[in-house]
Amino acid sequence: MNVAVLAVGTELLLGQIIDSNSAWMGEELAGAGIDSLVQVKVGDNVGRIEVQLRRLLDDADAVIVCGGLGPTHDDLTRDAIAAVAGTELELDESIVEVIRAMFESRGRTMPESNVRQAMVPRGATVIAQTRGTAPGLICPIEVGGIDKVVYAVPGVPHEMRDMVTRVIVPDLVARSGSHDVIQSRVLRTWGESESGLNERLDPIIAELESPETPTLAFLASGWEGLKVRLTAKAASAEVCSARLDHWEQRIRDELGDLVFGVGEATMESVVLEELRGRGSTLAVAESVTGGLVGARLTAIPGASDVVLGSIVSYSSDVKRRLLGVGPGEVVSESAAREMAHGARDLLGADVGLSLTGVAGPDEQDDQPVGTLLVGIVGPGFDEVRRVSLPGTREQMRQFSVITALGLLRTALGSAPRG
Amino acid sequence: MNVAVLAVGTELLLGQIIDSNSAWMGEELAGAGIDSLVQVKVGDNVGRIEVQLRRLLDDADAVIVCGGLGPTHDDLTRDAIAAVAGTELELDESIVEVIRAMFESRGRTMPESNVRQAMVPRGATVIAQTRGTAPGLICPIEVGGIDKVVYAVPGVPHEMRDMVTRVIVPDLVARSGSHDVIQSRVLRTWGESESGLNERLDPIIAELESPETPTLAFLASGWEGLKVRLTAKAASAEVCSARLDHWEQRIRDELGDLVFGVGEATMESVVLEELRGRGSTLAVAESVTGGLVGARLTAIPGASDVVLGSIVSYSSDVKRRLLGVGPGEVVSESAAREMAHGARDLLGADVGLSLTGVAGPDEQDDQPVGTLLVGIVGPGFDEVRRVSLPGTREQMRQFSVITALGLLRTALGSAPRG
Repeated sequence: MNVAVLAVGTELLLGQIIDSNSAWMGEELAGAGIDSLVQVKVGDNVGRIEVQLRRLLDDADAVIVCGGLGPTHDDLTRDAIAAVAGTELELDESIVEVIRAMFESRGRTMPESNVRQAMVPRGATVIAQTRGTAPGLICPIEVGGIDKVVYAVPGVPHEMRDMVTRVIVPDLVARSGSHDVIQSRVLRTWGESESGLNERLDPIIAELESPETPTLAFLASGWEGLKVRLTAKAASAEVCSARLDHWEQRIRDELGDLVFGVGEATMESVVLEELRGRGSTLAVAESVTGGLVGARLTAIPGASDVVLGSIVSYSSDVKRRLLGVGPGEVVSESAAREMAHGARDLLGADVGLSLTGVAGPDEQDDQPVGTLLVGIVGPGFDEVRRVSLPGTREQMRQFSVITALGLLRTALGSAPRG
Repeated sequence: MNVAVLAVGTELLLGQIIDSNSAWMGEELAGAGIDSLVQVKVGDNVGRIEVQLRRLLDDADAVIVCGGLGPTHDDLTRDAIAAVAGTELELDESIVEVIRAMFESRGRTMPESNVRQAMVPRGATVIAQTRGTAPGLICPIEVGGIDKVVYAVPGVPHEMRDMVTRVIVPDLVARSGSHDVIQSRVLRTWGESESGLNERLDPIIAELESPETPTLAFLASGWEGLKVRLTAKAASAEVCSARLDHWEQRIRDELGDLVFGVGEATMESVVLEELRGRGSTLAVAESVTGGLVGARLTAIPGASDVVLGSIVSYSSDVKRRLLGVGPGEVVSESAAREMAHGARDLLGADVGLSLTGVAGPDEQDDQPVGTLLVGIVGPGFDEVRRVSLPGTREQMRQFSVITALGLLRTALGSAPRG
């Protein structure tokens, strides 16, 4: 079973948007043991979409077309698929009703052009939209006597991702006829480079050579650290799980504290759990990150039992007046400590976390761009850490968030529980 | 003259690296008036590279192959091009000498494997490497009696960019014999659906049919509203600009206040400019968004002359104690108003902006998930708006940010300057 992806959109060819959807799909497919053959970008031109789709179907067992399902005149994916399948588009009234209801629930009237989104090639199945107005499509197509399939998904990333994980990957696995079960487990690490991890895991990787052992891959996740993904293939889910358990433990024995979580765990979810386990509340004082730390922590449902809030003291005056930062530089060890204490006291929390630093483009208080000071105060710890971070202004801010959360996790982990 | 790009690398197909090189090339080519036909990603497999290259050469006048020029066994671009051209690879001793000298200048000995990089298909011209060890290639190929060309460049972005701007784009322009210029202009809109915009612009779109008029496309940008892109092609940059000016004005006349900026403008940059123009400072009180509004505003360099900071009052106690929210529900018109006033007073700002609402998963204060209340107070305005937002918890929070900033923009725009 091999799959091609066709990303549709003139804005992709013109470089106005970078096609990250295809990369995401490639990673998902690989995780499910499905080969990616080729990935193509084409503009909003029905003839060109048709030509590419026909060619991809010559070699691939399945093609996922991404984008071009909107309601406007340049959304042409439905037309191209119908042409390649040699069939007609038909209006599906039930889709019209779903779209109409979606608009009405927001107190708006459905524009007539949205009816385009309810046109379906004859013989196709609809992938219900749970998030946007565009439904996806599953269109069986016979090519040279072989049964193949074309999927269509919207180009909006969260709509696309929902349909690929919920419907398309399971459908591909079912079509592949394999009865093997594939399971992946992702260990989240933070604090070591890819080559460093690779070196430490080299002896383990050397053992992962037989069909009975999982495969191991490193996945970069930007400033969020590195993922170590184990993928096992076996006749049953139980065997997969047992193998993943065994090798996860081997990796944890080697990497120790570098592993901060598994699967969907994030640094903020781990920190929240740790604080919740202690019955501690948190107050944050942010300067350089402008609110990013609070925003990330409160992205998690139920954060309100731990996170009381934060003071974004972007101006020096607010740092001094509200948080009690003394005279002297505001990018300094003492200011970071005072901010952490100030936020904790002002909000009445058990633990205080502060960030002050220089995101650039200009240096500040004689500190170079990339300087970050993190203050952490709570029962059993009162410390300030200085780090130097790389990257552009926005990268430095994002690195600052994960760095501060990582340092808080370490401080909590090494302090005795009250 | 139309061009295809073939990006080579298994890591691209597996999604371990996002192919931003192709997007960059698409933008460069468009800027030089050269059409992009299609862009393809393929793995490090000589047979598959060959198949794709042959297909691309069927339709395109030129193909740029990016990647696969390194010294290792999975760098196969040279071999594939030679196969498609029906010729042999020959060792170019002068390239060996350049690479050897490059290693020696760093005090190292050239590994024997680097000799691979000096293999050149017979008949090809070399693009001298100024930055890496891999030279690029220009390979003329006759396809069906038509003279075409294949370029090869390294996948390392700065090496690729150097060769494309220095050699390939000028070579393509010379081959095309055309002197047309292409220019795009993007109008940012917020507050109307794609189909709604389409309907309002229908009469204008109907006029955009001749070669003398720009093309128009809608680009979704998630919760950030919609972009309307005009692309003009003409003999000179002056004519392009004049046409874009004309049609931009036509669109603005139709859409009015829905257009909040042009090109790289964002809602937060527009709001900051508006505040800066009035000499006003801003304080924010955030609950449901947890810090996202402050984070977005301070992502812009130089925000500190406008943004004093924000109070993330996630707990009700902080809302009451720090911001002076009275007894009663904290998701309510009165709480939103008190939060905006409270943040403004506490931080000593001219303008206060507040957000309180329900992101879910559960309702709060008898208000359904999706409820957002925005308070805006400043010279000439003191208002609260209630809106109902769709989506998941995180989508609701992101929609809240752009909604609040959009409402602040409108309030500032309609209030008299002090």
